[in-house]
Amino acid sequence: MNKKLLLDNLRCIPDWPIKGVNFRDVTTLFKSPDALQEITDEMVDLYKDKGVTKIVGIESRGFVMSSAVATRLGAGIVLCRKPGKLPCETIQETYKKEYGVDTIEIHKDAINENDVILLHDDLLATGGTMKAACDLVKKFNPKKVYCNFIIELHTEFPHSRDQFDKDIEISSLLQF
Amino acid sequence: MNKKLLLDNLRCIPDWPIKGVNFRDVTTLFKSPDALQEITDEMVDLYKDKGVTKIVGIESRGFVMSSAVATRLGAGIVLCRKPGKLPCETIQETYKKEYGVDTIEIHKDAINENDVILLHDDLLATGGTMKAACDLVKKFNPKKVYCNFIIELHTEFPHSRDQFDKDIEISSLLQF
Repeated sequence: MNKKLLLDNLRCIPDWPIKGVNFRDVTTLFKSPDALQEITDEMVDLYKDKGVTKIVGIESRGFVMSSAVATRLGAGIVLCRKPGKLPCETIQETYKKEYGVDTIEIHKDAINENDVILLHDDLLATGGTMKAACDLVKKFNPKKVYCNFIIELHTEFPHSRDQFDKDIEISSLLQF
Repeated sequence: MNKKLLLDNLRCIPDWPIKGVNFRDVTTLFKSPDALQEITDEMVDLYKDKGVTKIVGIESRGFVMSSAVATRLGAGIVLCRKPGKLPCETIQETYKKEYGVDTIEIHKDAINENDVILLHDDLLATGGTMKAACDLVKKFNPKKVYCNFIIELHTEFPHSRDQFDKDIEISSLLQF
């Protein structure tokens, strides 16, 4: 992987969205045709032999990479959304956040037992939403679940991976 | 274009999100690897000779197709989002909706005068958001603006195209 190309195109924003957080802005990666191609190639390379049948994109920055990787892997796309956005019957997962709770959902007929799932989001920080997405996907009893991020904030959130079930394989392209 | 493949995979939901609206659900298109590939191929075919440098995806179903098409065209991706989601300085556009107003924004450094822009969303209904997105993109003074939808609800909203500036070329894959 051309890590330098990605690092050169990644913007870092201090104190956003709150003071003390060093935000990594993937929009500058997406804007660069070369960085976008590199992320796609790297994700395809990671999962090309895994038999992935569906990519589950997490609302909403997780939607962006889904189609480039899905079309290369021959997979479909499933949207994991906040409540009220999906028009048909859904299965939900509610999870705790720092203040209060949040809910995500997936269409009930979107995943079946023959699927190999790749969950994708742009960033692993606390991992709360992705953990809930993994729990939600497991309710569909798929054959296997993989989990991918473009960026993993390991130094700020060193224990994020610990919360995931051990049978879920996690990868990230850039670690900080 | 294999229109039958797309129609076979498109779900129609009566009375959603409100009574009287016949909602076309693109999530079943995205779920099908064949339909997803067909949409990608068709969009690439439409724009492969246009010199597109950036695809602007409209939050948030418009994000989904952006990467498959952008990587094939050698373009980058720009996100057009609701307020408060983009971390750097933005340019905004506020527009009227049926009840009240809404605002969308794009990072100030996301588009320049050398860009050829392809705006993309899943569905053309009233077209209010896309019209605002076109007006917003034009503030950056790009060389050319194209506008694409997967689905156009022509029968229910026959005058949607009339509101767009005449120099903006609009296309859709499926018309109802």
